[in-house]
Amino acid sequence: MSYFKNVSQVKYEGPNSNNPFAFKYYNPEEQINGQSMEEFMRFAVSYWHTFTGEGADPFGAGTAVRPYDHLKGMDLAKARVEASFEFFEKLDVPFFCFHDFDVAPEADNLSETFKNLDEIVAMIKDYMKTSKTKLLWNTANMFTHPRWTFGAATAPNADVFAYAAAKVKKGLEIGKELGSENYVFWGGREGYETLLNTDMKLELDNLARFFHMAKDYAKEIGFDAQFLIEPKPKEPTKHQYDFDVATGLAFLHQYGLQDVFKFNIEANHATLAGHTFEHELHLARINGMLGSVDANQGDTLLGWDTDEFPTDLYSTTLAMYEIIKNNGLGTGGLNFDAKVRRGSFDTDDLFHAHIAGMDSFAIGTKVAKRLLEDKVLEDFIADRYKSYTEGIGKDIVEGNTDFHKLSAHALEMGTITNNKSGRQENLRAILNKYLLEATQG
Amino acid sequence: MSYFKNVSQVKYEGPNSNNPFAFKYYNPEEQINGQSMEEFMRFAVSYWHTFTGEGADPFGAGTAVRPYDHLKGMDLAKARVEASFEFFEKLDVPFFCFHDFDVAPEADNLSETFKNLDEIVAMIKDYMKTSKTKLLWNTANMFTHPRWTFGAATAPNADVFAYAAAKVKKGLEIGKELGSENYVFWGGREGYETLLNTDMKLELDNLARFFHMAKDYAKEIGFDAQFLIEPKPKEPTKHQYDFDVATGLAFLHQYGLQDVFKFNIEANHATLAGHTFEHELHLARINGMLGSVDANQGDTLLGWDTDEFPTDLYSTTLAMYEIIKNNGLGTGGLNFDAKVRRGSFDTDDLFHAHIAGMDSFAIGTKVAKRLLEDKVLEDFIADRYKSYTEGIGKDIVEGNTDFHKLSAHALEMGTITNNKSGRQENLRAILNKYLLEATQG
Amino acid sequence: MSYFKNVSQVKYEGPNSNNPFAFKYYNPEEQINGQSMEEFMRFAVSYWHTFTGEGADPFGAGTAVRPYDHLKGMDLAKARVEASFEFFEKLDVPFFCFHDFDVAPEADNLSETFKNLDEIVAMIKDYMKTSKTKLLWNTANMFTHPRWTFGAATAPNADVFAYAAAKVKKGLEIGKELGSENYVFWGGREGYETLLNTDMKLELDNLARFFHMAKDYAKEIGFDAQFLIEPKPKEPTKHQYDFDVATGLAFLHQYGLQDVFKFNIEANHATLAGHTFEHELHLARINGMLGSVDANQGDTLLGWDTDEFPTDLYSTTLAMYEIIKNNGLGTGGLNFDAKVRRGSFDTDDLFHAHIAGMDSFAIGTKVAKRLLEDKVLEDFIADRYKSYTEGIGKDIVEGNTDFHKLSAHALEMGTITNNKSGRQENLRAILNKYLLEATQG
Amino acid sequence: MSYFKNVSQVKYEGPNSNNPFAFKYYNPEEQINGQSMEEFMRFAVSYWHTFTGEGADPFGAGTAVRPYDHLKGMDLAKARVEASFEFFEKLDVPFFCFHDFDVAPEADNLSETFKNLDEIVAMIKDYMKTSKTKLLWNTANMFTHPRWTFGAATAPNADVFAYAAAKVKKGLEIGKELGSENYVFWGGREGYETLLNTDMKLELDNLARFFHMAKDYAKEIGFDAQFLIEPKPKEPTKHQYDFDVATGLAFLHQYGLQDVFKFNIEANHATLAGHTFEHELHLARINGMLGSVDANQGDTLLGWDTDEFPTDLYSTTLAMYEIIKNNGLGTGGLNFDAKVRRGSFDTDDLFHAHIAGMDSFAIGTKVAKRLLEDKVLEDFIADRYKSYTEGIGKDIVEGNTDFHKLSAHALEMGTITNNKSGRQENLRAILNKYLLEATQG
Repeated sequence: MSYFKNVSQVKYEGPNSNNPFAFKYYNPEEQINGQSMEEFMRFAVSYWHTFTGEGADPFGAGTAVRPYDHLKGMDLAKARVEASFEFFEKLDVPFFCFHDFDVAPEADNLSETFKNLDEIVAMIKDYMKTSKTKLLWNTANMFTHPRWTFGAATAPNADVFAYAAAKVKKGLEIGKELGSENYVFWGGREGYETLLNTDMKLELDNLARFFHMAKDYAKEIGFDAQFLIEPKPKEPTKHQYDFDVATGLAFLHQYGLQDVFKFNIEANHATLAGHTFEHELHLARINGMLGSVDANQGDTLLGWDTDEFPTDLYSTTLAMYEIIKNNGLGTGGLNFDAKVRRGSFDTDDLFHAHIAGMDSFAIGTKVAKRLLEDKVLEDFIADRYKSYTEGIGKDIVEGNTDFHKLSAHALEMGTITNNKSGRQENLRAILNKYLLEATQG
Repeated sequence: MSYFKNVSQVKYEGPNSNNPFAFKYYNPEEQINGQSMEEFMRFAVSYWHTFTGEGADPFGAGTAVRPYDHLKGMDLAKARVEASFEFFEKLDVPFFCFHDFDVAPEADNLSETFKNLDEIVAMIKDYMKTSKTKLLWNTANMFTHPRWTFGAATAPNADVFAYAAAKVKKGLEIGKELGSENYVFWGGREGYETLLNTDMKLELDNLARFFHMAKDYAKEIGFDAQFLIEPKPKEPTKHQYDFDVATGLAFLHQYGLQDVFKFNIEANHATLAGHTFEHELHLARINGMLGSVDANQGDTLLGWDTDEFPTDLYSTTLAMYEIIKNNGLGTGGLNFDAKVRRGSFDTDDLFHAHIAGMDSFAIGTKVAKRLLEDKVLEDFIADRYKSYTEGIGKDIVEGNTDFHKLSAHALEMGTITNNKSGRQENLRAILNKYLLEATQG
Repeated sequence: MSYFKNVSQVKYEGPNSNNPFAFKYYNPEEQINGQSMEEFMRFAVSYWHTFTGEGADPFGAGTAVRPYDHLKGMDLAKARVEASFEFFEKLDVPFFCFHDFDVAPEADNLSETFKNLDEIVAMIKDYMKTSKTKLLWNTANMFTHPRWTFGAATAPNADVFAYAAAKVKKGLEIGKELGSENYVFWGGREGYETLLNTDMKLELDNLARFFHMAKDYAKEIGFDAQFLIEPKPKEPTKHQYDFDVATGLAFLHQYGLQDVFKFNIEANHATLAGHTFEHELHLARINGMLGSVDANQGDTLLGWDTDEFPTDLYSTTLAMYEIIKNNGLGTGGLNFDAKVRRGSFDTDDLFHAHIAGMDSFAIGTKVAKRLLEDKVLEDFIADRYKSYTEGIGKDIVEGNTDFHKLSAHALEMGTITNNKSGRQENLRAILNKYLLEATQG
Repeated sequence: MSYFKNVSQVKYEGPNSNNPFAFKYYNPEEQINGQSMEEFMRFAVSYWHTFTGEGADPFGAGTAVRPYDHLKGMDLAKARVEASFEFFEKLDVPFFCFHDFDVAPEADNLSETFKNLDEIVAMIKDYMKTSKTKLLWNTANMFTHPRWTFGAATAPNADVFAYAAAKVKKGLEIGKELGSENYVFWGGREGYETLLNTDMKLELDNLARFFHMAKDYAKEIGFDAQFLIEPKPKEPTKHQYDFDVATGLAFLHQYGLQDVFKFNIEANHATLAGHTFEHELHLARINGMLGSVDANQGDTLLGWDTDEFPTDLYSTTLAMYEIIKNNGLGTGGLNFDAKVRRGSFDTDDLFHAHIAGMDSFAIGTKVAKRLLEDKVLEDFIADRYKSYTEGIGKDIVEGNTDFHKLSAHALEMGTITNNKSGRQENLRAILNKYLLEATQG
């Protein structure tokens, strides 16, 4: 049977196509940095938003109309697997991602839950044999069930910690089984609601203990996926311990985990933390920690995680700028951790939304690539900082000076003139010009 | 002459006093943790807001009516020193803080500026001989003058870096000269306006180089003050490198500076970063990095640094809770980095505002002390996490387990019941009860 | 049977009581403005948060442990009615509020849904015969079911409009049947997600048409309850048409509905709109439109509707200040539109939370009453504006001047001195003093 | 002499031009809705940001390097007039705007200030004789001087009210003298800092009295310019009375001023109020109150008024969409109430910034025009709401129904199916396609 009858196959048809189910800008075969765009961008579909999500919000029930809505339990889980691989194929997407909880229902006890998981994972593995779509990453959902109310690895209850360990142990095994290239940790409940009842020090220590044990177990079973932390400042928890990239860096350094993890950076999490998406990518990149990307966007006039499909071309351009400078994402990819709006309830919207997101990132890639090829920003920046390549500036960078010499220099020199204007308005106009032209001719 | 004729001497007169220029709750001699409240709380007056500030805002000129308004240049600077020591004495406050720029005007060149500084510093030193008021910390203003437009230690211009070095060198010498107990670094321009023209990696590296040279120079001259970083996420700069405590921690760890610095934590900077004041204090405390406090408050419905005098008793209570748990602030103190509102323009307001702030922190101290004495929160927390003192929890904390054992434990145990409710509403009601009762009897 | 065995009866026991299930500050019999505090404050329990709410959030399932969790459908609905009246009695609360959807489950079609409602309403009416607890207001839930995805009275589908009319018609009949004193309209889906697909003019016109028809029907059936609009700026909808009190005023004036409605003002909705709670109350009050209050609080560092139980005594004081100046709330009341935190999952927390809220408002009432009795703020304000009671100021207020006379006056007078400082810091210190003293002696 | 030697004349040179001082997209002669783009868009330069602004911020002194920096007082004022008309001519811009305070310095008393104004206004009038650049609007600065600390028309001091009246009287006369097409009221200090010392009712009443007197005086002198209110929610004042368009509408309706005023809508003020720019424009438009536009943009991750030059093409497109649907701005225009960044300090940046802004709005115009020509959104919307053109929907719109009929309809019909998906993601992708293509071919 077909779950998505309205769509036969999404292909690249160029900007002039009137086919709403075609890529207009994302040409998988186009070259970027010596790879095809498909290889370079490594798009992934999020199982939870696309196959498990129902369009509920805090004030409303699910609205999504899905062809498997009549099913329950394991039947539903299996139908979703079937539907997902049909979707992957029609969208021609190279990767997907999932939480354990997305693919198989929790049973009354953990053993049964694991059995459910085993059955579905076997089914997925079977589908993967004949599919081009690979697993970008998997993870364990440790935030939905009430047992996680106060955290998982940071729970005040040691049994919960143990339960979390069992889930991640299983997750690592599943990752290995399915050949996942990464394993993600997002700690939606790893944080606190109020300091009045919280022992933050113990919670952070326990979180580090948990990560060390996870690392040891992955090594033991020979699962060499990249571990990824996904920062988020708040929601659902008032304060989450992995607030942003900088906070993650501090934690990893303090607990000796800086070589074990990279970051999975989400656009909407960045804006919730008060940062631009590109800031978080940039900060991770210059620290050698840019692992993967959750490609979505938020609404900066709203204070919660809207997880919209990315269509803002400024954001996709500046993100791809960082990613190209990073020589790509390595084992990571661009995962659409994005959900169709509650009012976009039919299955066509799932295609519209992914096409919109993939085209938007493709445009961003084209713009960023040209900006880099033309060294528009790179030359401006090199010139702006050139005083550090000579004289006192060179001494500073090379460690050949001290406060005595610097002070003497300052006392001798005349009035400082700031070398040149920062030209922010002009640079933005140039960015606009590149945006408008990059998809032409 | 007297600059503040309306006020003779601020004393503790208890809650029933009708004297608006009296402390009603701050009794300097009252005991807290084996010290007098004066010794424990270490209040400081900010020179810039109280003597240099004029009440300007982005849309309006200064409104402050000050007895030295008719003066200019060094005459104005000297009058301010006289006024400040009269103010310190009348307020009976043990500390003050200043930027170089606050006390002496910049001249046409750096040598002249240093001469101005020397003259005023000598005058201050002279006043300090007969005053009880000591210098909590000094710092260098590296944000007001146009030369700092693009940063100081992170400027794209090496001459600016050198100029900054000269200023901090001088600042360290002044700190030593005046017996300052700390030296503060607030990098209001150390950040970026747009990534389009920024080399963040070079800027961060340079910032670290600068700090290392500062440390070396302080050691060289035998100035053993505590170095303090003051985090702030934004304003004036779009993104500041010392965003919050966690960001500061990451930076210090990456550049091997974690033993050189502690944090000077400001309430309003915390809220601008999306944190509570107590969160920042707590995070610094459990890392052994709580150095000093800029005691003010913001308006969370406004998005800029309002630097209001602290009067929110919840905030002062939860701040003092952290400070008492930290066994006080060591060489640090509670500096009122706070300005009277633009509409509070007369000199009486300077007293009203400081009295309001000192009383508010005194009340917070009394409440926090009782909460700790009665172990209201401590016992609740100890009970909440007690599963980590026995069985599998103890194994986790002591490092005697792994994913195999934990998973086995999880598979064996039955349904997890979250040990107990977090009781947030009840804890808040108890906090209210303590607040209302702590100043009684 | 008893649903809440841990609590026998909540009574006033004074601040020194150690009984966690006692009022410490709310003494129902204490006099306030010639009424008992119970009569004046008119506390109400929200059926949805307290009996229907399950503690779910966008990332997690319900956590609440309730004695009727094993039931379904109408059995569950009936058990909740039984439990609610036990709760009302034990809490000794004079009012409750509900949405139709809270008390009776929706059936397959509207007729059946109405039958369910009739059955439960009859049961409620029966309970009310022997209960002191009355209905403050009821309303229709027109946001949870998928049919409301794009709005109710503002839906693009006229059938949805008709369905909404049927629901509100029934709601008005239920209100009359149960003697409700008010009827509330909260339009959680009356707004838009994106202007790209929205006809705002038609939607607003339709909303006004709907309100006029509702008014006509209420008149027809002799239901003379006060109609209330409850402003909220966003969430669930990106932009809601009833953004805040001012927006509501504009709408009511434009459509000739200003005499039909008052406002039901919620603290957390105020802060989401960028206002203080007291601002919204004040603005409604001076327009004669302060109808009722949803007594909760938000977390201004979070961007969504947290609906916390109110424990901030500044907020309750400043709210009660407005309410006392309004001579009370008339037919309105203080409805706890507040939910226990997800981690406060047991039934005891329902009591703890309501007690915390009622005590907090009682304290606020005591503080506000004393402030008003002592004319602390009133005298300050009268003095501040006294120039409008004489001379040119009197002419302005009485309409006896024009730009000619005013300009002549301005040209003649000398330098303007602002009459006096705004004294914000001192006023806040005085507020603190009243807060600490109002519950004493 | 020439103040801007680096630039000879800004002309339209098309997208391929490498001349940084050329329009690439704004072709003044291109037709839009039967007018030239110049006539339709009516760009204006803001005198205050471009000629008076110095690049100061709350933490730093001015950075702008201007050719008249060495001058003071009236000499400076005159040089700025000369420079401004050179700038207008080189930029070939049809309008400018100013506050009284921008063009002439305040003197020791009001009479002298008026003399200064008269002299400069005469000079401006003289320049206007030979310049194509006309006055879009003027206004009075009633926020900078300390006398306005507590407001102008809402000041607690009646003398201040009178002083404001004298200033606006003069402003209206100047507007008439220079042929201004509009007169703007922005009340930066018309609001409150704290309710603790505020009589909001008196202040609002006085504000309305002031506006009525202004209207009367304008009529008296035959100055028929459009009066404009410029909403802003906060900054400098904590709460401003003209919060947003809706708040302005409520005020105007309550005081019978709805036929006297339209709105001058600023992008950054919209975002500070929690709205999109297009929301405010749309709301004003459907109320027939869209008067003029302050064309800038904010940074939604910062909480203050950044007044950046507009370069976000989504924002310019959606703004122009509203303006074209409004058949243009009538007597209003697109005023760049925008300042170059503090780091964009040279005079070239003034050109770069205006060119960036004008090009960005030109692009937005092209995109919006094509969207409207192709009825991309209009057709989607018409189809979405078509149920209101027939059957029960038509009855609703035409007022031929009531709750009885609607309820009967609802009870009869079967399950409601939401007519169609809102298609938000797809609509955004289409918007991107139009954006990328509108400037081609």
